[in-house]
Amino acid sequence: MADGGMIEIIEYDTKRINKRVQEVISRGNLYFPDIDIEVRAIVDAVRDMGDEVLVKLTEEFDGVSISPSSFRIPPSTIEAAYEKVDAEFLLALQESIQNITKYHENELMRPFRLEEGDGVSLEERVSPIEKVGLYVPGGKAIYPSSIVMNAVPAKVAGVSRIVVMTPPKNSADNPHVLVTFGELGLKEVYTLGGAQAIAALAFGTETVPKVDKIIGPGNIYVALAKRYVYGVVDIDMIAGPSEVVVLADDSADPMFIAADLLAQSEHDQMATAICITTSLRLGKEVEAEIARQIKMLRRQRIVAESLKNHGAIIVVKTLEEGIELVNLIAPEHLELMTQNPRRCLRKVKNAGAIFLGAYSPVPVGDYLAGPSHVLPTGGTARYSSPLSVYDFVKRSSIIEYSKGKIQKKGTLIRRLASVEGLEGHARAIEVREKGGSSPDLPVDANGGLNEKSA
Amino acid sequence: MADGGMIEIIEYDTKRINKRVQEVISRGNLYFPDIDIEVRAIVDAVRDMGDEVLVKLTEEFDGVSISPSSFRIPPSTIEAAYEKVDAEFLLALQESIQNITKYHENELMRPFRLEEGDGVSLEERVSPIEKVGLYVPGGKAIYPSSIVMNAVPAKVAGVSRIVVMTPPKNSADNPHVLVTFGELGLKEVYTLGGAQAIAALAFGTETVPKVDKIIGPGNIYVALAKRYVYGVVDIDMIAGPSEVVVLADDSADPMFIAADLLAQSEHDQMATAICITTSLRLGKEVEAEIARQIKMLRRQRIVAESLKNHGAIIVVKTLEEGIELVNLIAPEHLELMTQNPRRCLRKVKNAGAIFLGAYSPVPVGDYLAGPSHVLPTGGTARYSSPLSVYDFVKRSSIIEYSKGKIQKKGTLIRRLASVEGLEGHARAIEVREKGGSSPDLPVDANGGLNEKSA
Repeated sequence: MADGGMIEIIEYDTKRINKRVQEVISRGNLYFPDIDIEVRAIVDAVRDMGDEVLVKLTEEFDGVSISPSSFRIPPSTIEAAYEKVDAEFLLALQESIQNITKYHENELMRPFRLEEGDGVSLEERVSPIEKVGLYVPGGKAIYPSSIVMNAVPAKVAGVSRIVVMTPPKNSADNPHVLVTFGELGLKEVYTLGGAQAIAALAFGTETVPKVDKIIGPGNIYVALAKRYVYGVVDIDMIAGPSEVVVLADDSADPMFIAADLLAQSEHDQMATAICITTSLRLGKEVEAEIARQIKMLRRQRIVAESLKNHGAIIVVKTLEEGIELVNLIAPEHLELMTQNPRRCLRKVKNAGAIFLGAYSPVPVGDYLAGPSHVLPTGGTARYSSPLSVYDFVKRSSIIEYSKGKIQKKGTLIRRLASVEGLEGHARAIEVREKGGSSPDLPVDANGGLNEKSA
Repeated sequence: MADGGMIEIIEYDTKRINKRVQEVISRGNLYFPDIDIEVRAIVDAVRDMGDEVLVKLTEEFDGVSISPSSFRIPPSTIEAAYEKVDAEFLLALQESIQNITKYHENELMRPFRLEEGDGVSLEERVSPIEKVGLYVPGGKAIYPSSIVMNAVPAKVAGVSRIVVMTPPKNSADNPHVLVTFGELGLKEVYTLGGAQAIAALAFGTETVPKVDKIIGPGNIYVALAKRYVYGVVDIDMIAGPSEVVVLADDSADPMFIAADLLAQSEHDQMATAICITTSLRLGKEVEAEIARQIKMLRRQRIVAESLKNHGAIIVVKTLEEGIELVNLIAPEHLELMTQNPRRCLRKVKNAGAIFLGAYSPVPVGDYLAGPSHVLPTGGTARYSSPLSVYDFVKRSSIIEYSKGKIQKKGTLIRRLASVEGLEGHARAIEVREKGGSSPDLPVDANGGLNEKSA
């Protein structure tokens, strides 16, 4: 940084700004060839040998000796955990689950059926995915909110079986995590972690059921394992580092902005926190506030590194210019701290979750408001969406035609088939037009193949 | 085959049946390391050098000399093509577009806004993806229906810019293809094909705009290029070989079933056509009908190879057993030719498109009925869906909280943040609870970190 502050201020410098935008967008890559080889070996071994490998790897990686009959947590363990959490946590968790459920109930996808007469019926049927695997990471910190934000949309969609995988240490033994399982009604929890847990979900073992889709965050082993099994099962997005962009005019409170940038940066060293503002004065005040507030945080070192490498205060000439920049970045989280946030909102095209006004900081959405906090990162908000009920349903098209309709429309269908050189397609129509009589006659001139025009 | 027929009949042999099911499900892989290396080099070159490389590769692969200013097809070329197609084709095309549009208009996703009082507003906004690239393959045959089935859901979703890529030979020079562009209002068409066209869409060049999502079928170069650029842009599914399963009881017409299995098999040697039936008598009649009808097809060799390697008539004891098998296969197309197809339908969980009764052969859906014929293959119908309007929209969550609500709920949010060790998150709430006054005080006991319980 030019001035040696905690965060760089970039004024009107398109080249530097574009570089920073590109950095944000390009962080999400998963190019780790060495780990990838290791992960593939683990996944293949679980696929081929099942439980036996799970026992071995859990001993090796987690330092826990366990037999297949103990993979699954008994209900009594979850019940006992309630004794170890305080009433306020339980209350907060319950309100969170209630709010998230209520919000996502609005996402129920509407099936439809069109009856056209002529014995024709066209229908779109919506049904839940049957079995979903949810990965819950262990590690230095635990994230009950992440369990809620992943599980609730699946539950609202009507998924009948949610199979949870979580490492035996620093997660499956944590009372807050266990109570969260209890409150969400997640009864099928296996104390397995890492790439081996993902493999078990994708292929099934003697003990672990095979699922149709795997969701949930995890470390690089988990992410690479999910990518490797994609196609065998569906997966959710592979989340990149977290991001916030705050768009502010000179009406905004620098103390709030600084607190929000710091909150974002504490996630990890790769987190991005950017303030885009029309006011150089505000930018400088935010910088000063950051310098002041950072001292109060125990995670100072992580925050400082994150701000240094991925933080910025970008000063633009107009709000329009700022919004253009927002649309280029397509941030995971966007805070609009301007005099009229809804006016800005109309021009924002790309952002996962958008927070309006001074009293809507990101943690409101992280924990309590309603929409899932599982959001598109790395610029993918240009084309993808927050986790929702839609991610847990599948649709089928249902088509019913009648003999009369085939006889009426057969010529048109055969004409299109013939242009594509698909003679058998035309014949499948023709045998019906004739009502099941002998189709030995050659296809007629209209519906027949015309290779020259194809 | 035991009896030397065109298609194998498998009776009650679970092991052979399971093997066949596994074969169907495992065909969709994209493991072609040599081509992959070549594709990556092409994509990287286009990314780095743009138009210049497109000119060079179009000369090399398509044998066509073209300058960047001529990449795009002028409107006059499309207009002129109308002279070269017959009225019946145009009529069939128009009715197809109309039906597909009408069906997909039912899929419009509903945004919503919840006002809770307390100054809280929660909103889900739905907006179209801005720019979509559509790949239209050239080659031995042309497929106007595929252009319709890919483009219409995007148009109905409100995508403002659809950028079409298609090879200069055997596609961009075909009047049926050009008229299909004309009828769909696709005005931005570039005569570029292969991996280089996909790269141009993903990264943009001097002439070709960068898009947000790439859809459409293609050869292995196109498929691998799409997979390689996934993440830079979104892609649709990578389609595997086509499949049909016909579930039939003894009421079904063997002539119809045979015609439908043959129609599916003519796509290519990798296509799958399976009849599951409760009637050995019917199975044998279908076999005989196939032997009779195949002689009428010009694509006999492709059909015979496809039936030999990927075809089967599977005889089951009950319809329930048949439906279980259907759910295991999760076929792209399912025909229910039973006395009461709607009764079977209720138990079918996994299938892309389902065709009911004797007069609803797959080509009805391929060309005219309404739902897009772009369907999940290779068993992915367990968790994925036909192409639809939903594939061309993105959602944003919008959260607005008030000072009063923060003051009421702040404690709960801070409690959840503290369990997760995210002190900065708790502070971002706390500065608001205090209304922008100094946040120098340490976070209170409730909202503070409690590392031991985390």
